[in-house]
Amino acid sequence: MQLKRFGINTSRINHIFISHLHGDHVFGLFGLLSTFTLLGRKTDLHIFAHRDLEVTLEHYKHYFGIGLTYSIVFHPFITIEPVEIYSDKHITVELIPLRHSVPVAGFLFREKKSLLNVKKEAIREYSLGIKDIRKIKEGNDFISPAGEVIYNAQLTLPPYKQRSYAFCTDTLYFSKLVALLKGVDLLYYESTFQDKDKKLARLTGHSTSVQAATLAKQAHVGKLLIGHFSNRYKKISPMLQEAQSVFPESIAVEDGEKYEVALIRIESQL
Amino acid sequence: MQLKRFGINTSRINHIFISHLHGDHVFGLFGLLSTFTLLGRKTDLHIFAHRDLEVTLEHYKHYFGIGLTYSIVFHPFITIEPVEIYSDKHITVELIPLRHSVPVAGFLFREKKSLLNVKKEAIREYSLGIKDIRKIKEGNDFISPAGEVIYNAQLTLPPYKQRSYAFCTDTLYFSKLVALLKGVDLLYYESTFQDKDKKLARLTGHSTSVQAATLAKQAHVGKLLIGHFSNRYKKISPMLQEAQSVFPESIAVEDGEKYEVALIRIESQL
Repeated sequence: MQLKRFGINTSRINHIFISHLHGDHVFGLFGLLSTFTLLGRKTDLHIFAHRDLEVTLEHYKHYFGIGLTYSIVFHPFITIEPVEIYSDKHITVELIPLRHSVPVAGFLFREKKSLLNVKKEAIREYSLGIKDIRKIKEGNDFISPAGEVIYNAQLTLPPYKQRSYAFCTDTLYFSKLVALLKGVDLLYYESTFQDKDKKLARLTGHSTSVQAATLAKQAHVGKLLIGHFSNRYKKISPMLQEAQSVFPESIAVEDGEKYEVALIRIESQL
Repeated sequence: MQLKRFGINTSRINHIFISHLHGDHVFGLFGLLSTFTLLGRKTDLHIFAHRDLEVTLEHYKHYFGIGLTYSIVFHPFITIEPVEIYSDKHITVELIPLRHSVPVAGFLFREKKSLLNVKKEAIREYSLGIKDIRKIKEGNDFISPAGEVIYNAQLTLPPYKQRSYAFCTDTLYFSKLVALLKGVDLLYYESTFQDKDKKLARLTGHSTSVQAATLAKQAHVGKLLIGHFSNRYKKISPMLQEAQSVFPESIAVEDGEKYEVALIRIESQL
């Protein structure tokens, strides 16, 4: 229902990453699985989650998945150490072990280095063939029939900076996270509690606004999104102010909001 | 999330009636069960559902119900014949067997006859004591110390008509329903399909708008609420028009809307 409310085309969802097996982070899955059957989905659906989800997925398939129109491909993980759990032509997904009352995974999505774009003028000027272009796209220099070396950076547009996004909830704050999240462009990190409730945060395996912002500052992330606020607070603004006082590029977010990480060309050193 | 959106105080929910074990009619339960624990619920929660839900409830309790703060009391049923499945001081709930691809229960909620209200003037005029009043509330006449018989209807306000509400989805139309739903004040009945798709309705175990309205007319119900519309239709208005052409007191409803059945005093025959 939330996906529908936010206008998300569910048929484009082929991979689902589940942080941990608490109801508020997993129960939405089963309605979606049944909706896919109602919609006649045919393509495989890949689910990445802690290995303990398998028994619940099997229960679902047995009792509620009769007539499932597609295959569920389950990719079980454990959360002992950071590990790449997914990779395709465009991105990788790395699991970040978090610390909570049950095993929790953060997910770090990184764009892969894309092929370079060759300048149109260069193709004309050096009469480049298809083979030449492919090599230049991969980053090689070009040697003309006359033996002249044309450096790659002269032939190609500056590449885009590879973007990264990390999603971390639920977890208490621990210093090892700084290295694991170093330099990500956009970080979603939980901020269940205000700074004054930091003992409660530790006790329940959660973080405070100040801890979220401290992590963002120490890890030199681009922007911090905070969420997963406790129902005990009537207003979110005090938490946002606390976060911004430590890390100005903090934003308080709610379900369904969208944040874009800008595509930036890395200017060459020529 | 829907209950919250519609401003329903979930702590007042003590009994849940589940029509059948298809995902769109049952998956919302588990989030609610966990929310109750987050809210620290202490009072028992009674769940009425087909007996096959037990294994899923046990699965939930084992894998997701750790730290459950209250007891779940499961009342399993089968859907072979009409049977009273619940009764308290104020209401009874009767199970109506429906016909679908899996066992489905309709639920018929009936108010019980309430005690009569004794007129204040009568208490003064006849110097009624507590024992007298109790007997009169139960419908008895009063015999004065002088041996005069005062009829109950002279002593009490006209009673309220007992109200009834039936909820029936998912089901195909079958004529036995007419007798089972006879005279209910408010009937929610599914109208998944338009009249032109009645073959498809029968095939998938659903009803059409015209069938819903025909049932309402035959059973002399007060008002008909139709819902559970198929996603295939862009507009609901053609279905509503079809229903109203057969049974004018038809209303098309959506989640969260409220309909009240008026309290009516039955005027005495005196």
